[in-house]
Amino acid sequence: MTTPDKPPLLLTPGPLTTAEATRRAMLRDWGSRDRDFIALNARVRDGLLAVANGAPTHTTVPLQGSGTFIVEAALCTLVPHRGATGDKADAKLLILSNGAYGQRMARICEVAERSFAVIEAPEDTPIDPAAVQAALEAEPAISHVALVHCETTTGLLNPVSEIAAVVADAGRELILDSMSAFGALPVDVQAGRIGCVVASSNKCIEGPPGFGYAIVREDLLAAARGNAHSLSLDLEHQWRAMGGNGQWRFTPPTHVIAAFDAALAAHAAEGGQAGRHARYAENCETLVTAMREAGFATYLPDDLQAPIIVTFHAPADPAWDFAALYDRLLARGYAIYPGKLTRAETFRIGCIGQVTADDMTGVATAIAEELAAMGVKRFGRG
Amino acid sequence: MTTPDKPPLLLTPGPLTTAEATRRAMLRDWGSRDRDFIALNARVRDGLLAVANGAPTHTTVPLQGSGTFIVEAALCTLVPHRGATGDKADAKLLILSNGAYGQRMARICEVAERSFAVIEAPEDTPIDPAAVQAALEAEPAISHVALVHCETTTGLLNPVSEIAAVVADAGRELILDSMSAFGALPVDVQAGRIGCVVASSNKCIEGPPGFGYAIVREDLLAAARGNAHSLSLDLEHQWRAMGGNGQWRFTPPTHVIAAFDAALAAHAAEGGQAGRHARYAENCETLVTAMREAGFATYLPDDLQAPIIVTFHAPADPAWDFAALYDRLLARGYAIYPGKLTRAETFRIGCIGQVTADDMTGVATAIAEELAAMGVKRFGRG
Repeated sequence: MTTPDKPPLLLTPGPLTTAEATRRAMLRDWGSRDRDFIALNARVRDGLLAVANGAPTHTTVPLQGSGTFIVEAALCTLVPHRGATGDKADAKLLILSNGAYGQRMARICEVAERSFAVIEAPEDTPIDPAAVQAALEAEPAISHVALVHCETTTGLLNPVSEIAAVVADAGRELILDSMSAFGALPVDVQAGRIGCVVASSNKCIEGPPGFGYAIVREDLLAAARGNAHSLSLDLEHQWRAMGGNGQWRFTPPTHVIAAFDAALAAHAAEGGQAGRHARYAENCETLVTAMREAGFATYLPDDLQAPIIVTFHAPADPAWDFAALYDRLLARGYAIYPGKLTRAETFRIGCIGQVTADDMTGVATAIAEELAAMGVKRFGRG
Repeated sequence: MTTPDKPPLLLTPGPLTTAEATRRAMLRDWGSRDRDFIALNARVRDGLLAVANGAPTHTTVPLQGSGTFIVEAALCTLVPHRGATGDKADAKLLILSNGAYGQRMARICEVAERSFAVIEAPEDTPIDPAAVQAALEAEPAISHVALVHCETTTGLLNPVSEIAAVVADAGRELILDSMSAFGALPVDVQAGRIGCVVASSNKCIEGPPGFGYAIVREDLLAAARGNAHSLSLDLEHQWRAMGGNGQWRFTPPTHVIAAFDAALAAHAAEGGQAGRHARYAENCETLVTAMREAGFATYLPDDLQAPIIVTFHAPADPAWDFAALYDRLLARGYAIYPGKLTRAETFRIGCIGQVTADDMTGVATAIAEELAAMGVKRFGRG
């Protein structure tokens, strides 16, 4: 049960439920320019690089802010402004979109005035590598490609390896938004020939929210000097300054980074990406099985479902009321998540964070009981 | 003494030493779209508005990131791009600079392509209101003026009230960077006719680092739609979205905000700005007195010294070694701060955060003892 001392389990795409040891790492203050903090920061950068298999070509560049901040920083540091001259004038980003986060990348490019094109697929359809290949062949001006690894809008897993191969074979650079997947789903920037992958502190590494990071090839950063549209969001400048003295240019969220350092240690202790994936996959399978037994239908077929967050169709019953169910579940200790689809009424349940298969069984049972109490009889899709 | 369990007192301009109750507020996870967090966020916004006497004309807009992020967001949301057309085409920012933070605002405008001019005063000289008045009379194109309240480069206090009056009388809008002063030095946006004041979480309210905030007149925000150069840093969009559902557009640093909420409560309990100022002023006076007794000279005369951070001349002695002194003081539990001046060798000691006059006496004593052990005999300026 949720009480002031016992907050609900966050069954959301993040911020998520963290480990107590992670939160307790925020109990001390750090001088952001002190050597102890510099050492901690270096450990975090190295740890993330190892998760992505980034050495020796790539580097980790952390940045203050949410996931959107690091996406914007990566796009607008690596892709020059549309008014740029000389060699950079032809830079153009191809955005592969099948949900809200792909669309947000297009919005970022509109505001920051980057040339871009979009391949838009339906929300329940993965990006087709053949379509990407055709677009790259048809438009030589495209220099970079952006892809969302797991589209949290639905929970859909895009075919990263196949698309990365197409992009690399065509001599373009991939910028992978692996926000809600990195640390749980495999990302190997060497094998995948991926120029840049971005994620944030409060997803599958299970830290608190407060910063994002790009794992990016150093030659791309070196060539990006002066590209950025913003001093705060300039990843090349952040990288160059941090390379000089080990410090963040501007005040970092010290407590959050210290907690993330503890979260990375827990991630390694669980077996790294493979171990984390195994737990999330068990969570996801347990959740889907229990919800189907209760009568619910998933929005996605199993082969497109990433073990991150699951979208369920809302019951086709006049007594269905998401807000009422949300409140009832909150009182029982579970915070679930609304749907974000444009064309179907849905709700979502996250599998990530410090939650177990027992919690998944628990929330599925609670949903069935509370809907029964609300008079909802038909749980299937409309 | 500094140990892993007892970190040093941070005698810096921030991140600073926070209260244990503030840090302990980070021990719980929050759903960023849950109503409890929405209520907490509203309380923080209202609390900050009250500190600035902002009601009913102003609103608080928080933003992820460091102080530089909120400065950039405020400048580039309120001042249109230099390529803007129509009524906005003539927008131009006058930056009043006497240190690194004024210069950084100029750099932000260069990168983000805002038209600007600079009045540059020496680092030991406050901005002259008469010079501002003359500049505004000479150049009608200037629409906005930016001023740093307390220049942390030196610890210098600029004459905010006088400059604010000049700017308002001339029909221009003031953007006040009160980063290291807000909450300890008075800022009354009504009496001062100040359009926008910005600060960050980890300064005189004594929260952890992770976000900044602008307290800004709502009509300025309403007129600023579409100005921003960046989606992440668009304060108007952040304000409009938060006004709609009470939520941050993109994942907020939930733990840091919860800690800041606790820090704001402690600020109120200490007597608000006046109470906080009284403690810091006592800290500063105690520090300066003790250091002068030991033979040190302050960089600034007392009438220019804000009770935030004090710059001391480095001893004119060949045995002086800042790095060695830093290490010795760290071992005794004090983290001091290097100088940032372009033209004089100095070091700095902060008066802010959860520190007392006894701590100030303690650090001054420790400095004198450690320098004596190092063989430094002459403590005065070069």
